[in-house]
Amino acid sequence: MKNYVTEFTGTFLFVFSIALAVAHAGALAPLVIGAALMCMVYMGGHISGGHYNPAVTLAIFLRGKLAPPAALGYVGSQLAGATFAAALAPVVTQQVFLVAPGNVGHTPALLVETIFTFTLVLVVLNVATDDAVAKNSFYGLAIGFTIVVAAFAGGSISGGAFNPAVGLGSALAAMGSKSVGHAWLYLVGPLGGALLATFVYHLQHPRTNA
Amino acid sequence: MKNYVTEFTGTFLFVFSIALAVAHAGALAPLVIGAALMCMVYMGGHISGGHYNPAVTLAIFLRGKLAPPAALGYVGSQLAGATFAAALAPVVTQQVFLVAPGNVGHTPALLVETIFTFTLVLVVLNVATDDAVAKNSFYGLAIGFTIVVAAFAGGSISGGAFNPAVGLGSALAAMGSKSVGHAWLYLVGPLGGALLATFVYHLQHPRTNA
Amino acid sequence: MKNYVTEFTGTFLFVFSIALAVAHAGALAPLVIGAALMCMVYMGGHISGGHYNPAVTLAIFLRGKLAPPAALGYVGSQLAGATFAAALAPVVTQQVFLVAPGNVGHTPALLVETIFTFTLVLVVLNVATDDAVAKNSFYGLAIGFTIVVAAFAGGSISGGAFNPAVGLGSALAAMGSKSVGHAWLYLVGPLGGALLATFVYHLQHPRTNA
Amino acid sequence: MKNYVTEFTGTFLFVFSIALAVAHAGALAPLVIGAALMCMVYMGGHISGGHYNPAVTLAIFLRGKLAPPAALGYVGSQLAGATFAAALAPVVTQQVFLVAPGNVGHTPALLVETIFTFTLVLVVLNVATDDAVAKNSFYGLAIGFTIVVAAFAGGSISGGAFNPAVGLGSALAAMGSKSVGHAWLYLVGPLGGALLATFVYHLQHPRTNA
Repeated sequence: MKNYVTEFTGTFLFVFSIALAVAHAGALAPLVIGAALMCMVYMGGHISGGHYNPAVTLAIFLRGKLAPPAALGYVGSQLAGATFAAALAPVVTQQVFLVAPGNVGHTPALLVETIFTFTLVLVVLNVATDDAVAKNSFYGLAIGFTIVVAAFAGGSISGGAFNPAVGLGSALAAMGSKSVGHAWLYLVGPLGGALLATFVYHLQHPRTNA
Repeated sequence: MKNYVTEFTGTFLFVFSIALAVAHAGALAPLVIGAALMCMVYMGGHISGGHYNPAVTLAIFLRGKLAPPAALGYVGSQLAGATFAAALAPVVTQQVFLVAPGNVGHTPALLVETIFTFTLVLVVLNVATDDAVAKNSFYGLAIGFTIVVAAFAGGSISGGAFNPAVGLGSALAAMGSKSVGHAWLYLVGPLGGALLATFVYHLQHPRTNA
Repeated sequence: MKNYVTEFTGTFLFVFSIALAVAHAGALAPLVIGAALMCMVYMGGHISGGHYNPAVTLAIFLRGKLAPPAALGYVGSQLAGATFAAALAPVVTQQVFLVAPGNVGHTPALLVETIFTFTLVLVVLNVATDDAVAKNSFYGLAIGFTIVVAAFAGGSISGGAFNPAVGLGSALAAMGSKSVGHAWLYLVGPLGGALLATFVYHLQHPRTNA
Repeated sequence: MKNYVTEFTGTFLFVFSIALAVAHAGALAPLVIGAALMCMVYMGGHISGGHYNPAVTLAIFLRGKLAPPAALGYVGSQLAGATFAAALAPVVTQQVFLVAPGNVGHTPALLVETIFTFTLVLVVLNVATDDAVAKNSFYGLAIGFTIVVAAFAGGSISGGAFNPAVGLGSALAAMGSKSVGHAWLYLVGPLGGALLATFVYHLQHPRTNA
């Protein structure tokens, strides 16, 4: 229960911050978005692990650290929090919140979502699950600023979700007022990136059971 | 005594930095404001807890970690420091300092003050009072950057106090030269957010006595 | 010897970064300047203490942690490093580097130098010399970002030295090509701030011998 | 093997982030670039040391912490990762990625590459190899933000590589479409800076065998 409360609350606050940052923070929105993730990871990492992202939950599940029913509970909590935040934000911003790619083809958008979610999940696995750096104080900084980098570097190309809950939650809340046909990008890219990160993490830790 | 000196000094320096940042830092003011809180939390956290905010003091009091007279002493020190800073800043900035909402209705402004003070207090309770992360080095980073996020995301809507001492201190210092009828926002929103955070923290820590 | 090498090198690299940031980083220069201090504190803090600032050295000396000859050696190393950097930077920037106040009176400029050097030294004393937070990892972050805040908030008013080595070193290097009659500001303000910080630190730590 | 996988992956993701930041992050690109290095250092520092830079590998080799064949393997992995990233990035950015100096003479460009690579390597040696700060959590922050500072302060002068893999990798990928005759700058400057840093580190640690 405490894990689901934490995942719901953290994802809600993360996505609410994204929606307001996109509306009000101009060119600095990527800094705000990554900082919001950092703060939420420090808020709940010691309780639920602070995933707030089904791609992260998939990788943790594949490492055998989460049973299937719990993993589903995590993803459900994340989607519920993200959708609620995306639906509530327009009360403040007076504009629909929808993560969508720039005016580019599918290849660059998918490449950006895949490579930066790969980066994010590889960082998470190394800083938050590896005993060699147990009890470190930098895990939230590293995870949050990976999203600062990703959103500045690739946000204008792919929309910058790197997270199925962000992509699908915003699509669910915007459905009806905007076209959401691109939302599959935020499922395929991030989950593909998470699988790739799990594989590379395995190469980096040959004695660890994946 | 040392606690009140720390709360007075930290809140004074925090609010003085806010007033100068608003006057001189342009679009980057939210970064400066959150960084100022971070530095003050690291300066005094190990002495007084580094609250500098009656909403935080309320939550710590509700968790039973502060006796009623001490809590009142904290709040008095915070209000005195904030008011003194708000009154002194115009010597440097040549402009009255007043935290005030943007040209929006009460609902968005209250929502922003409540949700982001909720975020702030939930972060404080988890990073600075939870034994599971005792002796961590990230508490100031997490607390300060929650305000970076809040001020970028919501500052243009609510004025961005997330702190009754900031809201009321600036109103007290500006009274006479500007209308301060909106100041109740910074009492109701932040204290409501603090109560909500105390409740969610309780759900996150079922075995802890709230 | 190793302490003087560290103070000379750290102050040189800090001031060289300031001069290039002022020339090339536009509105973000204060972030660069504070980040440079942070990196230098982490580079040399465990060797010399990472002062790079006579105001900090004065406060450490007053706490009895540095003998008079060593304190003089520190200040000499800092001034030499700062002056060398200020003299070398124009080879890169093609412009004279001089820290100077904005078009304001002496009162605001002195107030800014005093209050923010007070902040800096109070942060240093608490995060880098207090046993209650021994072995923390945040000392450089807190010290560096205090200068980020100070330079954004007050740099346009006072010039933003908060450090006699920066103020006097740049004046020594610019003497002849520019008027440097204001340089006393960076002696009086920062040393006054350091004395005030030593006093407040004493109030915060009643059982500690100052 | 795990070291080479980590150096290849980290350098690839670092350079891919640089190329996209240069194309999409405008004046904030230096922040993104340094943050990317920070995240990669936290990702792989506990595995390979997280060099991602032949100048860093040279200094670690000179301290006797890496055998010659391993050092060559590191440099090869770094060059391969950097070149692959520089070649792939145009699929996303639609522009050739090439690190090149501004419209300045050789002296300022070499000075900037040398001094800031000196800074970077001195920071790395002190925060990541000195037993006095073993088990700290700030090493990635200090290393990454040294590049934030360097790129803001000197990027417009030298191109801002501070890393032979970045300079040569981008030149290899751009060869044919752009002139790369300046690439020697990123070999001479960074390697010279690394030698200087090794010497100063030796002065800072008189009892340590270099």
